[in-house]
Amino acid sequence: MIPYRLISKKRGGGELTPAEIGQLITAYLAGDFTDEQMAAFLMAVCINGLTPKETAALTRAMTASGEVWDLASISGPKIDKHSTGGVGDKVSLVLAPWIAACGVVVPMMSGRGLGHTGGTLDKLAAIPGFETALTKQKAIRVLKKIGVVLLAATPGIAQADRRMYALRDATGTVESIPLITASILAKKLAEGANGYVFDVKYGSGAFMVDLPAAKTLAESLVKIAQSAGKKAVALLTAMDQPTGFAAGNACEVVEAIGCLQIRRPDDLYRITRALAVEMLILAGLFRSRVRAIDRLEKAIDDGSALDKLRAMIKAQGGDPRVVDEPLRLPQPKCSQPLRASKTGYVQKIDTCRIGWALVELGVGRKKSDDEVDLTAGIILEKKIGARVIKGEIVGSVFGGTKSKLKVVSDEISASLVIGPTRKKPAKLIHSRFDGRRWTEA
Amino acid sequence: MIPYRLISKKRGGGELTPAEIGQLITAYLAGDFTDEQMAAFLMAVCINGLTPKETAALTRAMTASGEVWDLASISGPKIDKHSTGGVGDKVSLVLAPWIAACGVVVPMMSGRGLGHTGGTLDKLAAIPGFETALTKQKAIRVLKKIGVVLLAATPGIAQADRRMYALRDATGTVESIPLITASILAKKLAEGANGYVFDVKYGSGAFMVDLPAAKTLAESLVKIAQSAGKKAVALLTAMDQPTGFAAGNACEVVEAIGCLQIRRPDDLYRITRALAVEMLILAGLFRSRVRAIDRLEKAIDDGSALDKLRAMIKAQGGDPRVVDEPLRLPQPKCSQPLRASKTGYVQKIDTCRIGWALVELGVGRKKSDDEVDLTAGIILEKKIGARVIKGEIVGSVFGGTKSKLKVVSDEISASLVIGPTRKKPAKLIHSRFDGRRWTEA
Repeated sequence: MIPYRLISKKRGGGELTPAEIGQLITAYLAGDFTDEQMAAFLMAVCINGLTPKETAALTRAMTASGEVWDLASISGPKIDKHSTGGVGDKVSLVLAPWIAACGVVVPMMSGRGLGHTGGTLDKLAAIPGFETALTKQKAIRVLKKIGVVLLAATPGIAQADRRMYALRDATGTVESIPLITASILAKKLAEGANGYVFDVKYGSGAFMVDLPAAKTLAESLVKIAQSAGKKAVALLTAMDQPTGFAAGNACEVVEAIGCLQIRRPDDLYRITRALAVEMLILAGLFRSRVRAIDRLEKAIDDGSALDKLRAMIKAQGGDPRVVDEPLRLPQPKCSQPLRASKTGYVQKIDTCRIGWALVELGVGRKKSDDEVDLTAGIILEKKIGARVIKGEIVGSVFGGTKSKLKVVSDEISASLVIGPTRKKPAKLIHSRFDGRRWTEA
Repeated sequence: MIPYRLISKKRGGGELTPAEIGQLITAYLAGDFTDEQMAAFLMAVCINGLTPKETAALTRAMTASGEVWDLASISGPKIDKHSTGGVGDKVSLVLAPWIAACGVVVPMMSGRGLGHTGGTLDKLAAIPGFETALTKQKAIRVLKKIGVVLLAATPGIAQADRRMYALRDATGTVESIPLITASILAKKLAEGANGYVFDVKYGSGAFMVDLPAAKTLAESLVKIAQSAGKKAVALLTAMDQPTGFAAGNACEVVEAIGCLQIRRPDDLYRITRALAVEMLILAGLFRSRVRAIDRLEKAIDDGSALDKLRAMIKAQGGDPRVVDEPLRLPQPKCSQPLRASKTGYVQKIDTCRIGWALVELGVGRKKSDDEVDLTAGIILEKKIGARVIKGEIVGSVFGGTKSKLKVVSDEISASLVIGPTRKKPAKLIHSRFDGRRWTEA
C-alpha cells in the first residue's frame, strides 16, 4: 500500500523522503513491490527526475540492499576508478597494476560489455586461466597480498541493482542520470574503497555523446559519492574515437601490456596517466601532480608496474607468461585488412557504429547468454586528423568467420568519415570536476 | 525489439502512429511485450499523455483485442449509457428498463464496484437468482426477446483491457484521461451499440472531482466514440453527494424500483430522465426533448417501464416478484440510526469518504476476491442544504456486524460538514457535450 502511494507521488513530480525511498527498495527486495510497480516507478523517475537528495537516498538504499565490504583490515589507501565506458577502453588493465605498484590498494569490480561498449571482464577472460568470479574472501586475500584485484561484482553486492538493471534494460528506462548514478555507485560504494575517480566519456562512442550530458553525469557521480562520505573526482575524457588502436578482447590485453612498457598509444597512455595522477592524489600519497607523474613513470621504467600485472594475473589463476609472450593469448583464425574508402582526412569516426559492428563480430553480446569470441577485434591505425589514400590499409579486422569479417569490415570502413580538410579530434582530457568546480585538465 | 523502441518514443514525448499502437497491443497479447514493459509504457502515457489520434488508435486496438459483437440481427436502435461512477449511482437499474419500454434496445455491460464507488453488477446480485455472467448467445437471446440486458463484460471482450486494467491498478497509472477513455470505450464499443450516452460525474464522490477534469474526460469519451463511428453525447452530472437516499446493494435496488413508480428521489429521477432523453434522441426516436419526456412519463404512468424491469429480471433468471415485494431481497441482520453531530445546515458531504466507509461495511471489495454483503448500506435522508438538529436521526446504516456499524456510522457522520449557513448543492445536470460544443443542460 505504501509503495503504491510512492509511485503516484513520483508520478506527480513530488520529492520522496529518504525514508520513503528506503521503504520502496526494502519492499522491492521483499517481493511486496512487484517488477511491474518498479517499472512504472522507474519510468516516472526517468521523466520527472530525482533530486540530488533522492538520488543519494536511492544510492544508499541500493548499496545497503547487498553486502558492503569493509576493507579496514587492509592497510593503505583504497582507491578505485570507474569508467562510463566506450570502445577500446582498456584503461583499467593498465591503470590498476600501475597504481598498485605505486602503493595504492585497488579493489576494482568491473563489468561485462554493455550495448556497443566493451567490458573489462571480457578482456580479462582472454588471459588463459584468469578468474574474475571471486568470492569476497578470495578477493580480499588477493588484495592483501598483491594490492590489486580485478573482479566481477559478487552475487551479494547491490541486490536491488541487479534486478533493477535488468528491468531498466527491458523497459526503456536506462537513460536517466539519477538512475545511472545510483546503479554505478550502489556497486562501487559496496567495494569499500575510500575514494573514487570517475572517467566520464563524451563523444560518438560514449553513452553520453554530448558534453553537457556527460558533465551532468560527472557532477552527479562525484556529488553523490561525496555525500556518501567518499573522496571523489571526475575527469571528462574523449570517446570520439576508439581509445588506443585495438578494440576487442585479447587484442586489447596485448595493447594494455604494451602500454606498461614502451609501446604506448598516446591517447591511452595520457588518459590512464591522468586518472592515475588523480588516484595518487586522492590516496593522499602526493599533492603535486608533477611528483605524482614522476612516481608513475618510475613504476614503468623500473618494471614494477609490469611486475604487479604479472603478480595479479598469477594470484587470480591466470598465466602470467602472457605478459611477455602474447602468442599465449587466444589467436584469431582469420583476418582481413581494413582499407580507406577514399582519399582525404579522417574527419570523424562513428565510434558507436564500430562498437555495434564489434558486437556483431562476437566481441560483445547481443543477448546476455551469448558466447563471446575472445580472439575477435580490430586494429585501427588511423585516428581523426590522419591523411589516408583510397585503398590504403588503415588497419585489420580479425576473428569470427570470413563472411562475418566482410560485413563487419564494411561497417567499420563506413564508420570513418573521410573528407578533404583536416579536422581535430575532441580534447582528450577535457576537464576535471572535484565536487565544487570544473577546471581545465 | 519494436515495442521497446515505442516505450522510448513515448518516454521522450513523441507521438506513436496508429500502426505502432496496434503493434504494441498485438505484441502484449502475444507475450512479446511484458507486463513490466507495459507498466513502463503506461507510466510514460500518464505523464506525457496521448494525442486524440493516439487515444483513438489505442481504443481501436484494445477493442479489437477481443470479440466485437454484431447486433445487426436485432432490429431497432441500440443505445447504451456509461457512467463514470459514484456513490448511490443506481441510474442503470432505472434507466435500462425505462428506455427499453420506449423502444430502444439496451445492451448494457456493467461493472462491479471500483474503489469507493458502487457497481451495477453488485446491486443486481441482490436480486435472488439474477444472473449477469451471461454468454454472448444468451445475452443476444434476452436482447431479442426483451430489448434490454444487463450483464458483465464477457471474458472474450477487450482482452487487452482486462490485463492492462489490473496492471494500472497496481502501478499508480489509473488516473489518465486517455487511458480511462480507452479502457471504457474498448469494452463499450465491443457491445456493438450504435450510440452511447456518457454520464460523467463531478464532485466529491466522483473519480474526477473537479469540473475541468470531468469536462476533459467527457470530451475525450465523446470525441473518441464519434471517431469510432458511433453516436455519442455526454452529460456532466453532480456527484457532490450520494445520488438518491440509498447507497448499498439491495437497498439501491429497492430505491431504483421505487423510481419507476411514484417513490422518486428527485435527483435520481432527474438525472435518469435527462440521460433517457438523450438516449431517445440518439436513437432517432424523437427530436423534441418535450416529446421525449412525455413518452418517458407515459412509460412510468402506464406501468410498462416496471413491466420491462420484471421481464428483464425473469429473462435473466431472477425473481421478478422482488419488484412488488421488496422483502424478498436480502435483509440486513442489524442496523443503527445515523444522527446529526451538531445543529446547522448540511453544507458539504465528503462522498468519497462515505464510499470508502461503505466498502468497509462490505458493500464493495477491498481485494478483488472479497465477498460482498448484499444487505449492507445506508439511507441518508438529509441532502446538502438541509437543516439538522444535533442528535436528530438523519438516516440509518445497516448490514455487517454491530461493531462494524458503529465504526462506519461514525465515519459517515464525520463525512457530513454541518455549518451555520445554508449552502447549495452542485448543479445537478451541469452541462452537455455533443462532440462540438458544450451547452447548458
